[in-house]
Amino acid sequence: MRFETVLIVGGGLIGSSIARAVRAKGLCKTIYIADTSEAACKTITSLGIADGVADGPADHFAAQADLVILCTPSGRLATTAMALMSSMKSGAVLTDVGSVKGHFVEALSGHVRADIHFIPGHPIAGTENSGPEAGFPELFESRWCVLTPPEGVDAKAIEDLTAFWEGLGSDVEVMDPSRHDMVMATTSHLPHLIAYTLVGTAIDMETVTRKEVVKFSAGGFRDFTRIAASDPVMWRDVFLTNKTATLEVVDRFIEDLTALKRAIRWDDGDTLLDNFAKTRDIRRRILDADKD
Amino acid sequence: MRFETVLIVGGGLIGSSIARAVRAKGLCKTIYIADTSEAACKTITSLGIADGVADGPADHFAAQADLVILCTPSGRLATTAMALMSSMKSGAVLTDVGSVKGHFVEALSGHVRADIHFIPGHPIAGTENSGPEAGFPELFESRWCVLTPPEGVDAKAIEDLTAFWEGLGSDVEVMDPSRHDMVMATTSHLPHLIAYTLVGTAIDMETVTRKEVVKFSAGGFRDFTRIAASDPVMWRDVFLTNKTATLEVVDRFIEDLTALKRAIRWDDGDTLLDNFAKTRDIRRRILDADKD
Repeated sequence: MRFETVLIVGGGLIGSSIARAVRAKGLCKTIYIADTSEAACKTITSLGIADGVADGPADHFAAQADLVILCTPSGRLATTAMALMSSMKSGAVLTDVGSVKGHFVEALSGHVRADIHFIPGHPIAGTENSGPEAGFPELFESRWCVLTPPEGVDAKAIEDLTAFWEGLGSDVEVMDPSRHDMVMATTSHLPHLIAYTLVGTAIDMETVTRKEVVKFSAGGFRDFTRIAASDPVMWRDVFLTNKTATLEVVDRFIEDLTALKRAIRWDDGDTLLDNFAKTRDIRRRILDADKD
Repeated sequence: MRFETVLIVGGGLIGSSIARAVRAKGLCKTIYIADTSEAACKTITSLGIADGVADGPADHFAAQADLVILCTPSGRLATTAMALMSSMKSGAVLTDVGSVKGHFVEALSGHVRADIHFIPGHPIAGTENSGPEAGFPELFESRWCVLTPPEGVDAKAIEDLTAFWEGLGSDVEVMDPSRHDMVMATTSHLPHLIAYTLVGTAIDMETVTRKEVVKFSAGGFRDFTRIAASDPVMWRDVFLTNKTATLEVVDRFIEDLTALKRAIRWDDGDTLLDNFAKTRDIRRRILDADKD
C-alpha cells in the first residue's frame, strides 16, 4: 500500500470515481472526501464511497492524509491547495486532476512547503456527466494519466503516485506542463470549444427549429452534443487558464475552416477532396492504438 | 409487395445496405445492383446480395424495375438519372438517397418523363465506412427518411415509397427540398465540415506530433475522427451541391466561435458560462427522443 490515507477534495465525476476505484482495488485503507457543496456531501455520504466526508474546511483530514488529490474546477485549484497546505503531513504527496497544468504550477510556484511532494496530474478520462452520482470505478481503466512533476521532486514520490494511477488501471506518462497544455489544447480543449459553439449555432438558427435539430441529429450533430453537455464551470476554467494555447489553436482552426469555406464558394472540389482524404488515416491509427 | 423489382444504382454503404434489408425483409422479389466500379461489382456478386449485377449501363435492369433508387455520390445523381430515364418502365418510381435535395430536383426539372413518379429521398443514416462490404441490413432501423416529392406527384406512388422505407424500419417525413437542405446544413453538413477541419488542424500542428494526437485522443478529439473518416467524394459533392445553405451556417458558426474566442481573450467567464450552459438541454432532448 503506497498511501494509507487519501483525501479527495471535490467529489464530482472524477473525485467520486477515484474514491470508488480506490476502494474497489483496495489501494488505500482510509478514504476522505471534502466538497464545498452540502448537497454533494449528502450524496457522497449516502453513496457510502468514503470513510469521512467534510462539507467545510478539511484540515483535520489533510492532517492525516498521505495523499491529497485536488479534484475541484481548475479555477479553484490554487486557492484550495494554499488553504490545505499548512495542515498537511510532512512527506505527503499533493496532486490534482486538472485539465490545465501550466497555470496551476505557476500559481503555486514558491508556495509549496519543502517537505511536501507536489506532483500535478491529469487523467485523460471523463464523461459528459457531472456530480458524485456520475462517477464509476472503471473510469480510469486503459486511460492515460499525465504527471507533470516540477524539477527536483523526489523520485520515490513520483514512483508512488505512478503506482497509484496504475493501480486505478491507467497508463502514466510524464510530461512538461507547457507541452501538456499545448497537446491538450489540440486534442481536448479545441474539440470542446468547437462542440459548444456548434451546438449553440444550431439552436440559435431562426430558420431551423430545435425540434428539427433534435429529430435529424443522427446526421452528425448528435456526436457533438455529448461533448457539449460537459460541465460548464469546469470548461470555463479550462479555457481561461489555458488561454494562450487555446487561442493559438482556435486561430489555426478558423484559418483552416475559412480556407475550406473559400473552396466551397469557388467550387474548388480538389482542395476539398485533398483535405477530406487526409483525415482518414488518423482514425485508423486511433483504432489500431485501441487494439494494443 | 409494393415493388416487385428494384434497381439500386451505386452499391456502396447505402446501396448495399438497402439491398441487404430488402432481402432480409422480403420487400421485393428481385434485386438488381449497378455500379460503375468493376471491383465493387465483384464484391457485390461475391456477397450474394443481388439477383443481378451490372458494372456498365444498367438499361436492361431499369427496363424491368418498378423502383429505381440512385445511391451514387450527389454530384452524379442528375446525369445517372438522365442516362436511365429513357429505359425505365412506365409507372415506375424513381428516387435517390442523396444528402442534398434542392440541387438534384432543380437539375432534373423539366427532364422527368410524365409517366415516371419522381420522388427524391434522403435516409438520415450512415456510418464512417464506405463500400459494399460496409453495408448492413439494420442501417435504416429507427432512422428518419425524408421524402421531397415535387408538387403534383401521384399520391399512390408517395404512399408506396413511404411503405417501402417503413418496411426498411424507418420513419418517413415529407419536406420541401429547400427546407430539407437548410436543416441538413445545420444538423449534418456543418458538423461534417467542422470535424474534417478540426482533424486537419490537429494533424498540421508543428508543436504537437501525430503520435501525441493519437495517444491523447480520448480527451474529445476522438469523437471528431469518426465523422472525419466519412467518404471524401460524397462529402465534397454535398458541400458543392448545398453551397448556399452551407456557407450561411459556416458563417454563423465562425461568428459564434469568434465571440467565444474574444470572451476567452478578455477573461469574460460569464459569457463562456452562459454559452456552455445552454447547450446541455439539447442533449437531454435527444436522449429523450431516443426513448420514444
